[in-house]
Amino acid sequence: MIVGVIGGGQLARMMIPAAVELGIELHVLAEAEGMSAGLAAVAVGDYRDRDAVLAFADTVDVVTFDHEHVPQEILRELVSRGVAVHPGPDALQYAQDKLLMREKLASLGLPVPDWARASSADELADFLDDHGGRAVVKTARGGYDGKGVRVVRAAHEADDWFTALAEDGNGGDLLVEELVDFSRELAQLVARRPSGEVVAWPLVETVQKEGVCAEVIAPAPHSAGRIADLAADIAFAVAEGVGVTGVLAVELFQTTDGRLLVNELAMRPHNSGHWSIDGSTTSQFEQHLRAVLDLPLGATGCHDDWSVMVNILGGPTSGSLEDRYPAALAAHPLVKVHNYGKSPRPGRKIGHVTAGGTELDDVSYEARAAAALLVE
Amino acid sequence: MIVGVIGGGQLARMMIPAAVELGIELHVLAEAEGMSAGLAAVAVGDYRDRDAVLAFADTVDVVTFDHEHVPQEILRELVSRGVAVHPGPDALQYAQDKLLMREKLASLGLPVPDWARASSADELADFLDDHGGRAVVKTARGGYDGKGVRVVRAAHEADDWFTALAEDGNGGDLLVEELVDFSRELAQLVARRPSGEVVAWPLVETVQKEGVCAEVIAPAPHSAGRIADLAADIAFAVAEGVGVTGVLAVELFQTTDGRLLVNELAMRPHNSGHWSIDGSTTSQFEQHLRAVLDLPLGATGCHDDWSVMVNILGGPTSGSLEDRYPAALAAHPLVKVHNYGKSPRPGRKIGHVTAGGTELDDVSYEARAAAALLVE
Repeated sequence: MIVGVIGGGQLARMMIPAAVELGIELHVLAEAEGMSAGLAAVAVGDYRDRDAVLAFADTVDVVTFDHEHVPQEILRELVSRGVAVHPGPDALQYAQDKLLMREKLASLGLPVPDWARASSADELADFLDDHGGRAVVKTARGGYDGKGVRVVRAAHEADDWFTALAEDGNGGDLLVEELVDFSRELAQLVARRPSGEVVAWPLVETVQKEGVCAEVIAPAPHSAGRIADLAADIAFAVAEGVGVTGVLAVELFQTTDGRLLVNELAMRPHNSGHWSIDGSTTSQFEQHLRAVLDLPLGATGCHDDWSVMVNILGGPTSGSLEDRYPAALAAHPLVKVHNYGKSPRPGRKIGHVTAGGTELDDVSYEARAAAALLVE
Repeated sequence: MIVGVIGGGQLARMMIPAAVELGIELHVLAEAEGMSAGLAAVAVGDYRDRDAVLAFADTVDVVTFDHEHVPQEILRELVSRGVAVHPGPDALQYAQDKLLMREKLASLGLPVPDWARASSADELADFLDDHGGRAVVKTARGGYDGKGVRVVRAAHEADDWFTALAEDGNGGDLLVEELVDFSRELAQLVARRPSGEVVAWPLVETVQKEGVCAEVIAPAPHSAGRIADLAADIAFAVAEGVGVTGVLAVELFQTTDGRLLVNELAMRPHNSGHWSIDGSTTSQFEQHLRAVLDLPLGATGCHDDWSVMVNILGGPTSGSLEDRYPAALAAHPLVKVHNYGKSPRPGRKIGHVTAGGTELDDVSYEARAAAALLVE
């Protein structure tokens, strides 16, 4: 059983432990030497290079991904050549293009923010007029971690993007959305295998800082009952509706009036599920491997009443993460440290920590304090 | 931080996930291509080949082991060249030579079975006379998994071993021990770092079949209080007394009259600690890496009231372990499967499964049933 992963970032890296335990060979097509998942790299190549991807795919039993950026043409050629690709291009297109995603979710009858396709500043102005003079504008493609997302209060504030799209050979429109009045952000992680089985982990709360996930609390506080059921129903409907295989993360807004709206989709293991490595019977990385191999899925219960994951962003102001281990590990023997083997750089995700326990206040403190010792 | 592991078996393999998560580079000196820990192999060489071991040691920050068989001369040369070796030769000698081990434990005042050094059938006959006509004879060196261990009722039954020892250039004696009247076997796992910190996991019960570990129950049933305290005291005394670094497993007999006697020592991650991968906050493999790097040790609490580990011995009668995944994983979504990537062979340890939960009967059933589906 050889699983091929396109992309050598930390998501591919975190598949390695699960693959080793299950006796699955993991082959990574890395963007460069020395990537986070370098241990499992068998080839270096660009995911936009048709020949490199096809040659890599010939050596594996199933192709999956560290990211969602492999072009549709290449994905479809793989499928036409009989390669098992999970998630497949029909599903991945909704993670690659936010306008397609909004249209699909709307057609599935799922709750989303008010949105529109805007091809000009005039159309954006109309949307602003209808939504209290403010909106979120998103590029349909290429955004992540807050990039390609902008809050605007005047139509001219997206002029540079309209110009760029006009100059781009592919053209295209912007997605404009209402600025949702939300009380918090949640994420519902599920996994689906080709033969149809779908499982959900508990709903989690995600805390963003400057558009980047900073902290995840599992399960989301005060979410038992209606909210948890609703989130799972939405995520199952998305998974079935788009036919995703592997792990799917559905990022949600909980509105101040208690509704859930779908914000974004990710069709791969996701930062909101990193807690599951230490906190769940089956980690999202093990589950992703099981799912893409169409193996029965594992249990998704929790080891602890509460798990809190805190990202390590940027890294220490001097030296390496490992230099901080003596202090951080001594002070926090209960905390699990995950180091992606990436060099520190402002804002870069270079690791995370997870704590678990029975009292949320204590667990949050443990995770935050350990993360602070690793970067301060 | 590069940890070098001499030997490429499943113990080295199971260090890989912990190393990946902590961002530690793991370099394995493997006995051959395609070993269980092949993913981390950077060199192939014989652990008895001085030049191969020295060249390997030059590329790493600390040397540790998948097994205890590296010759003392090579270990001592490494130390004399300034290489950090954990556990070091002064400790490892007690895992390499059972006569030295018995002498050391006796000098530390630790409880052991009655024993003697036997250099001839006459001396063995004397011991048999004093112990009801039966004894266990062990070769001092080279035994594992029941090999090099024999129950005898007459002195001539060890003649072949005496002859072999006489012919061996190194000569040597046999260890003879009373046949202990035990109610069960236990194991106490601890870890010690060079700067002195020692931690213990809960005492476990081990179930042997034909001299090979078949099943481990963590914690050992009916062991709270006196027995658990005694076992931890013994293991701490051994760890300090022999100056071990890394993980130490102390195998114990619980006698029918309620005493604990030290049976064997292992100075490396041990089969009795495999449950900790899924069942403890810190697995023995992560702890071993932390210990040999002299990093602060992690917490050793349990995720579940009970964990049961069942070895997969021999493997399926036809096909591979992975062929059995669909049936085994579907029936046991709570069970964690560990596959060492070794080809099936009668009696060979090729993997293990672990289950956890609140009712020991249920947990044992889950683990045993999953293991059965994987080999039947």
